[in-house]
Amino acid sequence: MTNNYDFKVRWGDTDAAGIVFYPNFYKWMDEATHEYLSAIGYPSSKLFQEQQIGCPILEANCQFKQPLSFEDSVRVQSIVQEIQNKVFKISHVFLRGEKEIAKGYEVRAWTSFKDKPKAQPIPEEVRAKMLQPNQHVEV
Amino acid sequence: MTNNYDFKVRWGDTDAAGIVFYPNFYKWMDEATHEYLSAIGYPSSKLFQEQQIGCPILEANCQFKQPLSFEDSVRVQSIVQEIQNKVFKISHVFLRGEKEIAKGYEVRAWTSFKDKPKAQPIPEEVRAKMLQPNQHVEV
Amino acid sequence: MTNNYDFKVRWGDTDAAGIVFYPNFYKWMDEATHEYLSAIGYPSSKLFQEQQIGCPILEANCQFKQPLSFEDSVRVQSIVQEIQNKVFKISHVFLRGEKEIAKGYEVRAWTSFKDKPKAQPIPEEVRAKMLQPNQHVEV
Amino acid sequence: MTNNYDFKVRWGDTDAAGIVFYPNFYKWMDEATHEYLSAIGYPSSKLFQEQQIGCPILEANCQFKQPLSFEDSVRVQSIVQEIQNKVFKISHVFLRGEKEIAKGYEVRAWTSFKDKPKAQPIPEEVRAKMLQPNQHVEV
Repeated sequence: MTNNYDFKVRWGDTDAAGIVFYPNFYKWMDEATHEYLSAIGYPSSKLFQEQQIGCPILEANCQFKQPLSFEDSVRVQSIVQEIQNKVFKISHVFLRGEKEIAKGYEVRAWTSFKDKPKAQPIPEEVRAKMLQPNQHVEV
Repeated sequence: MTNNYDFKVRWGDTDAAGIVFYPNFYKWMDEATHEYLSAIGYPSSKLFQEQQIGCPILEANCQFKQPLSFEDSVRVQSIVQEIQNKVFKISHVFLRGEKEIAKGYEVRAWTSFKDKPKAQPIPEEVRAKMLQPNQHVEV
Repeated sequence: MTNNYDFKVRWGDTDAAGIVFYPNFYKWMDEATHEYLSAIGYPSSKLFQEQQIGCPILEANCQFKQPLSFEDSVRVQSIVQEIQNKVFKISHVFLRGEKEIAKGYEVRAWTSFKDKPKAQPIPEEVRAKMLQPNQHVEV
Repeated sequence: MTNNYDFKVRWGDTDAAGIVFYPNFYKWMDEATHEYLSAIGYPSSKLFQEQQIGCPILEANCQFKQPLSFEDSVRVQSIVQEIQNKVFKISHVFLRGEKEIAKGYEVRAWTSFKDKPKAQPIPEEVRAKMLQPNQHVEV
């Protein structure tokens, strides 16, 4: 499944060069992943409260192609690119209109926090949701 | 006691106006309070681990007089201005060299997190440390 | 005029106490003010590009009543409380459902950045927009 | 040259999992790069004021091995790994004591902001400073 996460660049996201301070792209990738998990039916806040499951980061990467400015409207398109037994890789493309601004990915582990944090096999139903094609939605 | 907390303005602290984004002053007041607690012998990380005590914020205020820029060297002078039974007010003055840049305060409650968070009387020895005059230190 | 700004608490807004790190409330007040200016017809990004006008902060205050947690839905109600010649005071109430979480205010100066930053009288039409009652909107 | 940048984890750097929110590692890599440039004689603030030169990011990557907690003391070891004509790659290793916490890199372009931003050949003397071995310093 692909999920779209839309946001607006805030004043506090900019720096003295007049454009977005780059670590904010990782903040937005993190937000986009939480939105993705909500969209497939597993909001992170519930997942943690009910099952003590979280998805800590193993690696994150971003390539920057165009700068973003204050009050730009941005869409992040997120898709799970790879699923291993306990680890998944989610890619994020940043778009302003049609223009690709940046693209990145995160590698995260499906992890139980019941005792000491310990990676767990990703449940079959989560895996199925991540891999399902997007349904065509009439608007 | 007065404590001095010195820091440097980072690139990420600035905004597109070329100066510091104002919420960062509150981040620095928070840091200055943690430094203050360390300086009187109660580092927050220990206080929480050993006694489940923290100091959540009740109110914070700041008045802004001069802007700060990238790589400015700044000193925050912190002093506990008022101590009530369970609540204290700590004031922070921001200086660049001799110049006063901003001044603010925080009101915080001495709080146990053992069960539900609950404000506690500030212990006598903490109170004494907060009120002690600065020792003259020969350098 | 009153403006409502709705947002969701993000993972990165929380701290190790499991609740929102308090300086983020000031980030949200800043965002709410920019949304307010957009709502009355003066988006900050345009105001600056077309007229080199911005509204730097003189003072900000917040009182904290209830903590906020990850993925809470929050509304900020913003209203200009006072308008002087060059300075206005905007108050912000944070609500989760009906519950008041925090309330604060910002004092800002209407400022030209054409040469050296210099406060300007707030234009009559801006003043009128800030003071107009909310129109009743049938939904 | 290798440069060491030492810092302490702040309360605001943590999240509700009790550890550092991962985008902060990129904030620290950015800080470490500015410290590196200062250490070889080109503080970013001067470089920009005097020559309108900055080093915008093209790509950043980080691999996370161990979490960091509040008030941890951390060292970032930064070294320029690769220098091309207009672009350099700087790697950053995060250490707590002897333990490797994370390692990452940034790819940045030496860029003139005189007119439109435009990448420039990295000057010979900068290149020489980046490549020089660390001098043995008697302490």
